[in-house]
Amino acid sequence: MKILAAIDSFKGSMTSETANQCVKDALPDHQVTGFPIADGGEGTVDAFVSVMDGEVITETITGVNGRPYSGRWGWVEKDKTAVIEVAEGTGLIQADKESLHPRNHTSFGVGEQIAQALDYGAETIILGLGGSATVDGGMGLLQALGVVFRNAERGELSMLPVELNNVQSIDMDGLDKRVQDVNWLIASDVTNPLLGEKGAVYVFGEQKGLGKVELSAYDKTMERYADIVSNVTGKDERNTEGAGAAGGIGFAVLSFFPCEFQSGLSLLAEKGDLETLIKEVDLVITGEGKFDDQSLGGKVPVGISRLAKQFDVPVLLFAGKIDSDRTAVEEENIHALIPIVDAPMTLVEAMEKGPVLLEKAVKRSIDLMRAGSSLQAKDDGN
Amino acid sequence: MKILAAIDSFKGSMTSETANQCVKDALPDHQVTGFPIADGGEGTVDAFVSVMDGEVITETITGVNGRPYSGRWGWVEKDKTAVIEVAEGTGLIQADKESLHPRNHTSFGVGEQIAQALDYGAETIILGLGGSATVDGGMGLLQALGVVFRNAERGELSMLPVELNNVQSIDMDGLDKRVQDVNWLIASDVTNPLLGEKGAVYVFGEQKGLGKVELSAYDKTMERYADIVSNVTGKDERNTEGAGAAGGIGFAVLSFFPCEFQSGLSLLAEKGDLETLIKEVDLVITGEGKFDDQSLGGKVPVGISRLAKQFDVPVLLFAGKIDSDRTAVEEENIHALIPIVDAPMTLVEAMEKGPVLLEKAVKRSIDLMRAGSSLQAKDDGN
Repeated sequence: MKILAAIDSFKGSMTSETANQCVKDALPDHQVTGFPIADGGEGTVDAFVSVMDGEVITETITGVNGRPYSGRWGWVEKDKTAVIEVAEGTGLIQADKESLHPRNHTSFGVGEQIAQALDYGAETIILGLGGSATVDGGMGLLQALGVVFRNAERGELSMLPVELNNVQSIDMDGLDKRVQDVNWLIASDVTNPLLGEKGAVYVFGEQKGLGKVELSAYDKTMERYADIVSNVTGKDERNTEGAGAAGGIGFAVLSFFPCEFQSGLSLLAEKGDLETLIKEVDLVITGEGKFDDQSLGGKVPVGISRLAKQFDVPVLLFAGKIDSDRTAVEEENIHALIPIVDAPMTLVEAMEKGPVLLEKAVKRSIDLMRAGSSLQAKDDGN
Repeated sequence: MKILAAIDSFKGSMTSETANQCVKDALPDHQVTGFPIADGGEGTVDAFVSVMDGEVITETITGVNGRPYSGRWGWVEKDKTAVIEVAEGTGLIQADKESLHPRNHTSFGVGEQIAQALDYGAETIILGLGGSATVDGGMGLLQALGVVFRNAERGELSMLPVELNNVQSIDMDGLDKRVQDVNWLIASDVTNPLLGEKGAVYVFGEQKGLGKVELSAYDKTMERYADIVSNVTGKDERNTEGAGAAGGIGFAVLSFFPCEFQSGLSLLAEKGDLETLIKEVDLVITGEGKFDDQSLGGKVPVGISRLAKQFDVPVLLFAGKIDSDRTAVEEENIHALIPIVDAPMTLVEAMEKGPVLLEKAVKRSIDLMRAGSSLQAKDDGN
């Protein structure tokens, strides 16, 4: 059987690549192709590099807390396309737990990676938003590309500590002109606006170190920042979908660059020609850490299954936890929802054993399909 | 599809009947027949009554602790066959937790049920051993049927408290003569001898209320009892397989009745004509609470799958917990080992949700088989 494995990461347990590998390991007698999944967050560079047949570039940048950092981004020479993810350049993974606070985290390094990509001759930049440690409204990123932020005394603000509250004026004369000519594709599954209760501060602030009591003041600071940006750019992107992505980097790129937001999966599907891959197989295997009825609203596996449905290719969906009364989703062509746990166990144990459990669940499911097909064959023989 | 559901009880979660019903509920579009499973312990009466199309008789007996008890046994008029289980007549389920100790528990009631069955005209008695609260070497059972046990002063011992240690001589003149002419079939999956570290006292004593420190003395008492029994019967059954079943009731019936031990499942399979049922279906669904590699040594589901293998009928095995590296057991015709849990959860939660989880797991598996068979059909069409 020809099988396409396109499984989302099981957060905290395994990456998309590992999960796809489990399917290959489970089914040595089948022809399994892996298609890595990323939603714009962690793993975006690797996923695009894999499906576009590119390479990974490693260059030193300013880390999220100001220390030098070996930053990775992707380069596809044949398409003159760069792939940058903020989860790498300014990711939570770099942050120190003890000093976890937005004032200590700059997005400067992502701006440096953009400049590096432009130096490589990038004509298209895919920028993945998700997993950043910053809530700086993209100020650091813009600083790295030549924008100057000044305080009330017209002094230039440095990148750290982040003094968003002291921004009084913006001088964009020094902005690297190349950013206007490049084709920007923003890969993001975050649709939040910049401000308010659904915005970058209220929704994502606490996981980045803001105290509950700081949220209201920080949101007001961000509002003032948005006012000043709108003044200087002549357009107001604060309410645009995705402006609240990556601590407001979404707002910065929408305000200063000519860009287009896309879901991480659809961009990846387009660049990796997922449709063609699906058309060529008998079965698609997808999955995610937890499946619930909200998953049908548009998470990655359902996106995959909708593509497969167009070509009448059946889909199996594996998950660490099935929180639904359903055992299949016929209308999305998902023939079975399959939990990977094989005994009562804790979440920690399930996450630790994730790859082994997934491999066994895949094996078991294909065994069942084979049992069904041999019954069918027997029937036909009668 | 025609399906036979023959699932063992998931101990503490659901009976065999409930588990089989889950399969029916899961698959309303298929023709599902249930075959209840019992190993000689709890549920034996119901299982035989169901497969032999008999009835349940309820008559008052002496309960395990001497109080009157409404005891149930099975009667199959057309075969003049009675079915008695010690789990009912003298079951742990009747015992009071506060006074849990073998000296407070007599097997007298089982003897009374045997007499009741003989009064009905029983020509065959199926006696299920397993789940008893007693460790009386079958003394109570024999007393109910007319055997007299005397102490050193030649005083007759009463049934309670159980004074196994005071037995000095046995007078079997009064033993109901009918027990010699009846066809005894002993349904038991216990193969332990009466004495020693694998015997009735050491292996099962503690769960029946014996303290660890009492085990050695109680085992010696049982040995003396065995000496006296052998003397009076002229044969020694202490080492026979199954003598240690049901607190030594196995030893008593082996010593005093002309009887034959059989595994509960094979007896049930024979009486219920399981072979014919299996021959007529496309798929057998079996299961048990926990599957591990020891299960292959001969637990119920493997017994079922061996029968199914003879007729080339595929088997699916469902379990609450799969403790094995395998996902199928090809050599036993088990096409898939399927865990019923669908998320990380505790054992208690899994047991509480057992029927719901089993129903969903069955549905999901048949969905997978159908997916396999439609792929096969598609292939055939190409």
